[in-house]
Amino acid sequence: MNMANVSADIINHIKDHRSIREYSDQEVSDSDLTEILEAGLRASSSGNMQSYSIIVTKDKNLRRELYPHHFNQEMVLEAPMLLTFCADFNRMKKWLTQSHAPQNFDNFMSFMIASIDAVLASQNCALAAESLGLGICYMGTTLANAQKVGEVLNLPKHVVPIVGFSLGHPLHFEEKKDRLPLKGIVHFEKYQDYTDDEIQEIYKDREEKGMKRYRSVIDLKKKIESGDIQNLAQVYTKIKYTKESHEEFSRNLAHYLLEQGFLN
Amino acid sequence: MNMANVSADIINHIKDHRSIREYSDQEVSDSDLTEILEAGLRASSSGNMQSYSIIVTKDKNLRRELYPHHFNQEMVLEAPMLLTFCADFNRMKKWLTQSHAPQNFDNFMSFMIASIDAVLASQNCALAAESLGLGICYMGTTLANAQKVGEVLNLPKHVVPIVGFSLGHPLHFEEKKDRLPLKGIVHFEKYQDYTDDEIQEIYKDREEKGMKRYRSVIDLKKKIESGDIQNLAQVYTKIKYTKESHEEFSRNLAHYLLEQGFLN
Repeated sequence: MNMANVSADIINHIKDHRSIREYSDQEVSDSDLTEILEAGLRASSSGNMQSYSIIVTKDKNLRRELYPHHFNQEMVLEAPMLLTFCADFNRMKKWLTQSHAPQNFDNFMSFMIASIDAVLASQNCALAAESLGLGICYMGTTLANAQKVGEVLNLPKHVVPIVGFSLGHPLHFEEKKDRLPLKGIVHFEKYQDYTDDEIQEIYKDREEKGMKRYRSVIDLKKKIESGDIQNLAQVYTKIKYTKESHEEFSRNLAHYLLEQGFLN
Repeated sequence: MNMANVSADIINHIKDHRSIREYSDQEVSDSDLTEILEAGLRASSSGNMQSYSIIVTKDKNLRRELYPHHFNQEMVLEAPMLLTFCADFNRMKKWLTQSHAPQNFDNFMSFMIASIDAVLASQNCALAAESLGLGICYMGTTLANAQKVGEVLNLPKHVVPIVGFSLGHPLHFEEKKDRLPLKGIVHFEKYQDYTDDEIQEIYKDREEKGMKRYRSVIDLKKKIESGDIQNLAQVYTKIKYTKESHEEFSRNLAHYLLEQGFLN
């Protein structure tokens, strides 16, 4: 085995990611699922506490309940399963109680620690799944509608859903999405704030590719042609992510964190 | 090329992770660093916004400034570099302004979205680095002391450090850490809350391995022998992670989020 080849394979594999939104009827085998989950468990976690849980949801009725909370994305029903990664200090706190240890982890810092643990595990699972020829698509709705998703999944106090993805065999592979150039994301030594020219340069290619993509979406096409939407940045914050929606998600999430025992 | 072999290689690679705290003097080559960063950029991100920045810090003086904020972990000085992954809506907001688009992303939900983006990118970088024979060790201090780390790294408003790791050539490979069993982390369909017996079963192996490890730490050995510390759960919340420390980190982080424009 040539180590240089293995490392090239792994990096090429990581770089080859694309989100999969359409799935074939083929099931995910139990052995593949176990491999994926075991890869998740090997991720780093704060203090090796593994303050997360992974929920595997195949049941169609449960997924019908989740469907509106995931904003009616078809893959919620059409993929064979969903994986939901939750920040979880419930398990740890029960162990503390049994061990007559002082309680902790019912605060905002602990929520963040557990969220990071959950996301690290999720990315291991995503990459393991993709290496098996499976496809995934992350759903931001998992957090945007955390309370509703959490209620369907029966989450107890000190557990909050953070990220989730559909999982299954791809019907086809979409093209890879564009990315901002490396120099737009990476800073050497300290943060170097962006000049106006640099911002233009960083987003130039995306503007072109993004507008091309959105022009093919019928509703947006009209708005673009009528002049209501003049560029990609306006697609983002006039249509996709409005201040009002995000302020509502923020209030809902803060309220849920309070209810789940992570704020005091 | 045999695809089954490639997928086994990738999964074995993911499962082979261990944190590296001691590094050789060998530098990380520029070509390796570029591969690692490019792998990071291919991670999923919310709406493909890539709301994160990666800061590569090699300068020894800067790392001396960061050292106390990372609680004097020697690897901060001894590894050839640190990578710090920041939630970043500064870049995006500048682009919105230039494009006469409505502003958004100055709220808690946006902070969470950007944090998740940063963590997904970091795990891609970690796995790419490890595939090249390099080692990493995540530092939770990046978030616990976010404001202090952010000040050294010159972060503008709407940028917050979330996770970071040391990066370099391992001096040696430590043993792989134990993990909780799969059935302790994974739930099928919905969350199945734990019975007392299940908690005991899940943590049994860890109790043994963890106490063995901590008995070899001189300060802890005394406390264990004197009876002040009776089990691993007490190591966690009497010594490593106290309620007081986490409430202080929580207050500091909330204060910093307000200052950085993510709470209102």
